[in-house]
Amino acid sequence: MKQVAIGIDIGGTNTAIGVVDRDGNLVYEKKPQLATPQKKENPTGSELRSEELMENFISALTKEIKAAIETVKQINPDIEVAGIGIGAPNANYYSGTIEHAPNLPFVGVINFAHRIHNEFPEIKHVRLTNDANAAALGELIYGGGKGMKNFVMITLGTGLGSGLIVNGDLVYGADGFAGEVGHTTVVPNGRVCGCGGLGHLEAYCSATGMKRTVYELLAKYNNTESVLAQTPYTDMTAKIVFDAAENGDSIAKEVFEVTGEILGRGLADAVHYLSPEAIFLFGGPTAAREFIFKPTKDSMEHHLLPIFKNKVKVLPSELKEGSAAIIGASALVWKELEKN
Amino acid sequence: MKQVAIGIDIGGTNTAIGVVDRDGNLVYEKKPQLATPQKKENPTGSELRSEELMENFISALTKEIKAAIETVKQINPDIEVAGIGIGAPNANYYSGTIEHAPNLPFVGVINFAHRIHNEFPEIKHVRLTNDANAAALGELIYGGGKGMKNFVMITLGTGLGSGLIVNGDLVYGADGFAGEVGHTTVVPNGRVCGCGGLGHLEAYCSATGMKRTVYELLAKYNNTESVLAQTPYTDMTAKIVFDAAENGDSIAKEVFEVTGEILGRGLADAVHYLSPEAIFLFGGPTAAREFIFKPTKDSMEHHLLPIFKNKVKVLPSELKEGSAAIIGASALVWKELEKN
Repeated sequence: MKQVAIGIDIGGTNTAIGVVDRDGNLVYEKKPQLATPQKKENPTGSELRSEELMENFISALTKEIKAAIETVKQINPDIEVAGIGIGAPNANYYSGTIEHAPNLPFVGVINFAHRIHNEFPEIKHVRLTNDANAAALGELIYGGGKGMKNFVMITLGTGLGSGLIVNGDLVYGADGFAGEVGHTTVVPNGRVCGCGGLGHLEAYCSATGMKRTVYELLAKYNNTESVLAQTPYTDMTAKIVFDAAENGDSIAKEVFEVTGEILGRGLADAVHYLSPEAIFLFGGPTAAREFIFKPTKDSMEHHLLPIFKNKVKVLPSELKEGSAAIIGASALVWKELEKN
Repeated sequence: MKQVAIGIDIGGTNTAIGVVDRDGNLVYEKKPQLATPQKKENPTGSELRSEELMENFISALTKEIKAAIETVKQINPDIEVAGIGIGAPNANYYSGTIEHAPNLPFVGVINFAHRIHNEFPEIKHVRLTNDANAAALGELIYGGGKGMKNFVMITLGTGLGSGLIVNGDLVYGADGFAGEVGHTTVVPNGRVCGCGGLGHLEAYCSATGMKRTVYELLAKYNNTESVLAQTPYTDMTAKIVFDAAENGDSIAKEVFEVTGEILGRGLADAVHYLSPEAIFLFGGPTAAREFIFKPTKDSMEHHLLPIFKNKVKVLPSELKEGSAAIIGASALVWKELEKN
């Protein structure tokens, strides 16, 4: 009998559902993805409307999970679903709840894992955590972190997420929300972060942070020659900066240097906390490879205590960009089986 | 039969040796303390001289450990020594080595735990870690951290040490040196730290950091009225600042505010990493109680993400200042018994 895990990723726009085997192969994926309920569907943030949206979402999700199970059982009737792993914003591993997620239309604390488990009582493990934690588990179970006991996962996207592996397991902390490295302060009284705080790592080193640096540098030099000066703020992406850097654009190259300098300092902090074997970087900006890895590593090494120098690897994640969210979420299940 | 643990703390000047019971009571303490070999005894840093100093030190320490065991066995012949726990600078828990300790006269990597174990093969556990990690274990086994699974210990002295408890155990990391929170950057390109780095937490919030702030503020205001302006740099202590603050001295009060502001920001970073249940502060400056705790807590709360606000306790350590080093080191032994 072959065991598989269901991975679900509740993203801002869509919710991805897939079935993953023990080696991290995606054996089924729901296409097109399910729509995630939107904030605008509950503009007043009322409890009543929240409950209705949640009912509809749970019922749609249940239908899709059933379809996924049916499909894989048609391929191989001996397949056993070992569990359901879910990645979601503001997800609490311990309680299985989604709590006050700022970009979802649900009010308060939603008992999400429990409600899904009610629909599938025959499935032993239904677990929930945030997407960066899920990615870290994905790296641990299927990726470059296999066999490592201590590493740090950093996801670079709209925000900067992180998952910390200590002694072979994810750090959830006292309340289930550990691993918010993106919201540590790297520039006192610096840029306004998405969370409202000042000078957070996320405000400088996420894809969004890189975009902000583009315009800060254009303004600093009053540079009208750079190809980046032709693109409106709203349209700028890490990909555009990468392409410009490859073509030798000085602003684009400096964006990577500035980003790497600050990210490397942040990674040095992480090393001083946790002494990891490696730090994995995941997400759009890592496609720029040495443009981002070199200044990041140089800065990290520069900021490390002598006892840590030349010991900690900074590596690109081995998770595939497209399926990482599902794969990561599914890893929750195998980790649960290990523990039980 | 009553079990006891031997605790040894290798400090800069003296090495303290004691015997501690399971409840953290010091049942024997060597007085006067043994002298720690000094850097000036090996000014050239030669391997030969290092080995000789180490031989002498091991032999003196062995004599004192034997005396300690004899003394407690005279009191109660049924006593069993469960192990020896040692706190030392640059100590590596995994390998039992002391590695390139900058303030000791020993060269390179010293196989310390192994050499002590050779002298006492009948004792099962001989373990080594740095003093701040030992203090964290002391808090976990005997102190305010009893029953907690996740907390952070910060020791404020000449330096700023830290020990991280995650899932009920100390974080050693990939190489045994985790928990160097004092060397995370809080002010980019800020004060020169004892390690040579710039803007580290230790350079601002240790007792030494507070002293530096005194003179920075005197210089800032050109203040000649403050009682602190009468004391030479070399003589300034956290105790003098505390006394001045109690007498209403404006510079002294601002020293605590500035220190608390930066320390609180550092603690917020620690919360974002690890989501601890509590953060314990230990050491001289904590005697100032609310002068240091209030601005620290206020600043920490100010810098926390909403999901962490009003959740994390900031508490004075329950370890006694005088015996904490021995007690902490002895805790290594009980932790080892728990694991085996």
